[in-house]
Amino acid sequence: MINLMNDYNYTAHPRVIDALREAAENRYVGYGLDEECFAAAGSIRGLIGLPDADVFFLPSGTITNLTALAAFLRPHEAVIAPVSAHICMHETGAVEATGHKVVTVFSDDGKARPEAVRRAVLAHTDEHMVKPRLLYISQTTELGTVYGREEMRALRDVCDECGLFLFIDGARLGHALESPACDFTLPEIASFADIFYIGGTKNGLLFGEALVICDPALTSEFRYLIKQRGGLMSKGFLLGIQFRAILEDGLYFELARHANAMAALLSDKLVHAGVQLLADTVSNQVFLFVDDGTLRRLQEHVLFEVWAAKSERGTPIRFVTTWKTTLEEIEAVMELL
Amino acid sequence: MINLMNDYNYTAHPRVIDALREAAENRYVGYGLDEECFAAAGSIRGLIGLPDADVFFLPSGTITNLTALAAFLRPHEAVIAPVSAHICMHETGAVEATGHKVVTVFSDDGKARPEAVRRAVLAHTDEHMVKPRLLYISQTTELGTVYGREEMRALRDVCDECGLFLFIDGARLGHALESPACDFTLPEIASFADIFYIGGTKNGLLFGEALVICDPALTSEFRYLIKQRGGLMSKGFLLGIQFRAILEDGLYFELARHANAMAALLSDKLVHAGVQLLADTVSNQVFLFVDDGTLRRLQEHVLFEVWAAKSERGTPIRFVTTWKTTLEEIEAVMELL
Amino acid sequence: MINLMNDYNYTAHPRVIDALREAAENRYVGYGLDEECFAAAGSIRGLIGLPDADVFFLPSGTITNLTALAAFLRPHEAVIAPVSAHICMHETGAVEATGHKVVTVFSDDGKARPEAVRRAVLAHTDEHMVKPRLLYISQTTELGTVYGREEMRALRDVCDECGLFLFIDGARLGHALESPACDFTLPEIASFADIFYIGGTKNGLLFGEALVICDPALTSEFRYLIKQRGGLMSKGFLLGIQFRAILEDGLYFELARHANAMAALLSDKLVHAGVQLLADTVSNQVFLFVDDGTLRRLQEHVLFEVWAAKSERGTPIRFVTTWKTTLEEIEAVMELL
Amino acid sequence: MINLMNDYNYTAHPRVIDALREAAENRYVGYGLDEECFAAAGSIRGLIGLPDADVFFLPSGTITNLTALAAFLRPHEAVIAPVSAHICMHETGAVEATGHKVVTVFSDDGKARPEAVRRAVLAHTDEHMVKPRLLYISQTTELGTVYGREEMRALRDVCDECGLFLFIDGARLGHALESPACDFTLPEIASFADIFYIGGTKNGLLFGEALVICDPALTSEFRYLIKQRGGLMSKGFLLGIQFRAILEDGLYFELARHANAMAALLSDKLVHAGVQLLADTVSNQVFLFVDDGTLRRLQEHVLFEVWAAKSERGTPIRFVTTWKTTLEEIEAVMELL
Repeated sequence: MINLMNDYNYTAHPRVIDALREAAENRYVGYGLDEECFAAAGSIRGLIGLPDADVFFLPSGTITNLTALAAFLRPHEAVIAPVSAHICMHETGAVEATGHKVVTVFSDDGKARPEAVRRAVLAHTDEHMVKPRLLYISQTTELGTVYGREEMRALRDVCDECGLFLFIDGARLGHALESPACDFTLPEIASFADIFYIGGTKNGLLFGEALVICDPALTSEFRYLIKQRGGLMSKGFLLGIQFRAILEDGLYFELARHANAMAALLSDKLVHAGVQLLADTVSNQVFLFVDDGTLRRLQEHVLFEVWAAKSERGTPIRFVTTWKTTLEEIEAVMELL
Repeated sequence: MINLMNDYNYTAHPRVIDALREAAENRYVGYGLDEECFAAAGSIRGLIGLPDADVFFLPSGTITNLTALAAFLRPHEAVIAPVSAHICMHETGAVEATGHKVVTVFSDDGKARPEAVRRAVLAHTDEHMVKPRLLYISQTTELGTVYGREEMRALRDVCDECGLFLFIDGARLGHALESPACDFTLPEIASFADIFYIGGTKNGLLFGEALVICDPALTSEFRYLIKQRGGLMSKGFLLGIQFRAILEDGLYFELARHANAMAALLSDKLVHAGVQLLADTVSNQVFLFVDDGTLRRLQEHVLFEVWAAKSERGTPIRFVTTWKTTLEEIEAVMELL
Repeated sequence: MINLMNDYNYTAHPRVIDALREAAENRYVGYGLDEECFAAAGSIRGLIGLPDADVFFLPSGTITNLTALAAFLRPHEAVIAPVSAHICMHETGAVEATGHKVVTVFSDDGKARPEAVRRAVLAHTDEHMVKPRLLYISQTTELGTVYGREEMRALRDVCDECGLFLFIDGARLGHALESPACDFTLPEIASFADIFYIGGTKNGLLFGEALVICDPALTSEFRYLIKQRGGLMSKGFLLGIQFRAILEDGLYFELARHANAMAALLSDKLVHAGVQLLADTVSNQVFLFVDDGTLRRLQEHVLFEVWAAKSERGTPIRFVTTWKTTLEEIEAVMELL
Repeated sequence: MINLMNDYNYTAHPRVIDALREAAENRYVGYGLDEECFAAAGSIRGLIGLPDADVFFLPSGTITNLTALAAFLRPHEAVIAPVSAHICMHETGAVEATGHKVVTVFSDDGKARPEAVRRAVLAHTDEHMVKPRLLYISQTTELGTVYGREEMRALRDVCDECGLFLFIDGARLGHALESPACDFTLPEIASFADIFYIGGTKNGLLFGEALVICDPALTSEFRYLIKQRGGLMSKGFLLGIQFRAILEDGLYFELARHANAMAALLSDKLVHAGVQLLADTVSNQVFLFVDDGTLRRLQEHVLFEVWAAKSERGTPIRFVTTWKTTLEEIEAVMELL
């Protein structure tokens, strides 16, 4: 079976496994206070050009989201997020379980728009309503789209205007940065966001997300909050080892580039073959419509997600590529269409 | 430096790393619904002799504790735990952060006593107080002590009498089962506990705890709760792979046996050398008193924890052994005393 | 100033004040375990024809909502509510603060529709999403509309089909029951709802809501939950005294009838005078459009709420009538138009 | 039956009922933004001599405690309280339900001691533990004892030293201020406490507590928090009306003085009659030991609380006096002894 189901269907890049194997005889201090974590954090600070940023390593996306969002909000403060955001639909109410409302803004492509954010803030006028305090977006979005510089700057502006923190879920930040739709760099992200993370789980690591808090004022006692929510790994050094390995020689970006390239190639071939896409492919996710026969044929040989119910244009499905996806796999898929 | 600081100062046993390496070309279903997890769960069900038990794999101890405790309690229900329990002092109020009070019972050796549990329950008489509903204990305890069969049975009885679930934190369950102080087996634990876990992080895995819910009535929709608290790893198969590797040929128990043996050996030598212990050594933790000169000498060559403030008997310190601790390390420590 | 701002702008009906005055020399048992509360609960059980129902008295609406909703839900379970529901917009995230997500369904008239509820349930398919477990509606709705028997029965059916509890916020239940749009009685409500309340604050009491739990299985230990959330008044008898007074000789219904009649009269006169209404008036709220001149004139002599921003039909405003609203006030308002 | 069970067994002082009756024809703005609340708040600011203090009126004690404590704490911060404190034992885990741990310090007389507070703070050393941030005490305590000026100043000092807010639960603040054991005044309380409240429910009101936040920096958006927890009464003016009535001409203090005087008188007579007290009587609670015969005799004619299990000195019971307790009642009780 060819697996285009998601980007977390493999263990890790060999360099990551090797780094763990080479550390076999080492002993480490616990809870992320080891040299591996310090070094990885230092690399990240270098990459983003913010020497004062704080970097924390957490095991996975949901716990990173819920820990960070709950850390910066008072009980009556709320998060704004586009309706398709991971925290809205696919985290089983994790943010609400910390006591905070998520106010959704409409979006048809996964992106939050400044005007919608402003309207959401203005609709909350007094103490009978929650107070929006943080805008949550994802780069890439859950729909594979990517914010460009002007879009990001406009969101930063509306956050400044409305007194919102800007939080960027970067579970697929590598894919975003390597996207043709992204005309800005990692250091620029750090200038837009108050908090963001560099996702490892979906781009080569066994597991792990590197949370960057750009404003030192927000980091106060943040380790307490990681511990309280259960995200402070006793073997925190595992995260440091992995991030060091993947950041070395730009491997992290190379892997994302490959995944994007495979998606772009698949996408081109699909269009060429007359297949309808739901949207342009700009990262490692391809959304397309298939007819019933194709759907059945694909399901025999490929793992992928049926994205929504069948419409008149066919059944929308999603292919996700990774650093492991091969040309042969792309071609094998094309032969089924 | 010899590291006797804790039992999570290394990456993992080579067989665990090898298993991950051998899985390099595999593709997996996400979120723990893969064959590796199913196989590891099957092994555990076999080992405990409960074919209907449910087994869930979580990344670490605190998130296992907070997820499981919050899953089974209504908002007004409380946990009872001995005062030295991990959830009382070393999880930054993780249980309270889910909304539940932890009622402590006095204990001088880390163990809960039936009479103290009963008194705590009886002190809660009406709706102006929380309602105790679950007893949390650890095997081994945080102080390295181990419950024997009669102690465990007496706790089960008081739980039945008082309407409490019995939850056993098994972060060091392997060390407990291999302890000379433990006169019962893994299947018996499953007959005492409603919920317990088999700790991997402290006994050979990179990370991972296997939570066993013995009563199928309690498992309803438990995966929702893991997801909501952030403990449902997208690459859940990493836990399945690791547990399969460590459970094969009894490796898990062998590693715990080695750690215990090293602690016992060290302990014997210490006693022989006239050093005072705080308590008998029955698992992989050794508590001893040292004078100021010894303390300084040790600190130059060994990593360990100063357990409490100096008293007239000296400064109490803790040595923790693991499956990696060697005879040479034990002897090197003895030479410093 | 004529006050048509809301239905909680007065102290209480004289009979309520008198009842409190007459109790001046009495002494009572605390926390609602007194004869006044028992008698008032008995009256309510009689009125609804459910001898086994449990009745609890709470001081106000938000605390009744948050206590009851959190009592019946496990952590991953969610509430469904129409987008204009009080808990969605006007309780500062009180439900989310207990850890539960509120899933909104679209509604243009304040009412939940069965098809929208079913769709919302079906959209939640697995453990990555919350599990809808309770439908929250209001009778009358926040927009003054009223469910009829067939609408209510259809909601009950969809709740049965989807495994949802049905909760009816009855802050204005009296006004609903006396509405021409309501073709069913109080006992029938008890057959539709699993939990509902009879609002006192907006219909003659100083304060107080009577929460009725129709299914005895749901009441287990409910007093613990009231206490924990802060709604268990030490002088619970104040609620018993007031409800006894207002329920005597049908006063509660008489007051609601008067308020509705005043709204209907005002509404008729407005229509007659050519004023445009947003919707038919069926309870004690009147929604109308006014031009700028009328708006200014009204604001000099009448307190009322500007409901939304000005549109091409004028500025929508809301008049609320109560048991204290007089014919003279209605006429005085009409003269301003 | 003579009722010495508690100090909330009556409705309200006649002046309070009269004030409500006289307001029958008034109309008010909702949610505590009315002139009655403004005037009552002004009176309180005058009495405490803090023109910048913020005053909020809440319906009862538990909701005041849980709202205020949760408002000022970040998720990992904890409350310190003496073991007998109301929030520890008699609020069904209300504080924990907001997510915060309550760290108890030993006390045999209901008072927190500076040294115990300091030790509790120092025992919390890093991010594996909660961070104590607020000291909760009661004046009078649950055991009827009263802090003097030097004790209060010493607690203020330890709070300053350890970075704690000082919160004083004043459910019986009137009784404390009128106690012979209290050598300081209301304005001084405001200089010791960061937050405190003046209890109305137990001293003449139907219900209501006036929360004073002395540090304007802490009041930011506090109304949001009251609303979210369900304590923002739509008819907030009822609290303003009542507090104005009770504060006029010093009535509040007069009522407390009377209750204390009745307790002192009863206490003197008991001592004179050879009855053993548990502790000196300094406010409106009397704790005494009775033998079995006396216990039975009293139970036939008097309502009171059995405080604890029988010991060799007899059964400890509690009498509580109020502004309504009469000389005749005291004498009638004495005749039963």
